[in-house]
Amino acid sequence: MRPLAMGRVYQLIEPGPVVLLATSRRGRPNVMTMSWHMMVEFTPPRLACVVSDRNHSFAALRATRECVVAVPPAAMARKVVAIGNCSGRDTDKFARFGLSTRPAREVAPPLIEDCFANLECRVVDTRLVNAHGLFVLEVLRAWIDPARRDAKTLHHQGWGRFAVDGRVLRLASGKA
Amino acid sequence: MRPLAMGRVYQLIEPGPVVLLATSRRGRPNVMTMSWHMMVEFTPPRLACVVSDRNHSFAALRATRECVVAVPPAAMARKVVAIGNCSGRDTDKFARFGLSTRPAREVAPPLIEDCFANLECRVVDTRLVNAHGLFVLEVLRAWIDPARRDAKTLHHQGWGRFAVDGRVLRLASGKA
Repeated sequence: MRPLAMGRVYQLIEPGPVVLLATSRRGRPNVMTMSWHMMVEFTPPRLACVVSDRNHSFAALRATRECVVAVPPAAMARKVVAIGNCSGRDTDKFARFGLSTRPAREVAPPLIEDCFANLECRVVDTRLVNAHGLFVLEVLRAWIDPARRDAKTLHHQGWGRFAVDGRVLRLASGKA
Repeated sequence: MRPLAMGRVYQLIEPGPVVLLATSRRGRPNVMTMSWHMMVEFTPPRLACVVSDRNHSFAALRATRECVVAVPPAAMARKVVAIGNCSGRDTDKFARFGLSTRPAREVAPPLIEDCFANLECRVVDTRLVNAHGLFVLEVLRAWIDPARRDAKTLHHQGWGRFAVDGRVLRLASGKA
């Protein structure tokens, strides 16, 4: 994986792909599936996500204030759903799903090599955590696999139904 | 357009489609293109969006605390980009782009009939507006055109490049 320019991070998150959220607490990494996220700022890239306090990842994210947001290719769909259908409370998901990891540079949670992009993030605003489970994250480092830069992603439409990226339109736009 | 059950709203927003945001201030409606949004709660459906204070819609949204979030079909792509590339400061976008509207029930901004789904929303949390331009919205009423319920949507990848929804995967999931 190669470094991705900070100004390009929004191109990964803005289209609304299903992502994986990796956390780590007391030396134990965990990972969940997530589609409730959005961009908040271009540079430094900031994003927001909602993690329910019913998710095992919630306490780790709130306590450690760091995570990795990883973007899986559409080919990983079955594994992505399975990761979302069990809990880190009783499952080592990295072992169970045979995920390949490598250490991140700035945060304790690992990068996920099965994913074509990984964002090392720090929590920078927790004011809406109690009311809405809403965390604002700042991306510290971004990584992309250049061989999979154009990987198709998944968009969750509810109850295990996903649209995969289809044809690409290129229209003249004066704006990012 | 028919009422859409509140519990199904997340199926529209979670996949990350490009949407239109309609506001209305002093009797003048306006509309902008937006991709920085996410779900926050299933029921009552709440979503969050980021509107920059550089957008003409920002002041209207902050002052009136209401809006319509409308989901355009992929066939509307050129118009969606054009709406994003001009400003309500000097343009009546509804006239310029020939958008068809009808009155909403609960809010002043209009529903957009060109779009296959419309969400009437009220701003319910402004605590992150100053820091991040982040508004939390609650959906008061949701509308869908039953004839276009499965319309394909647009996912913005930056600089006018969009992925259109492609093939659909249906995988067993125990969760919404």
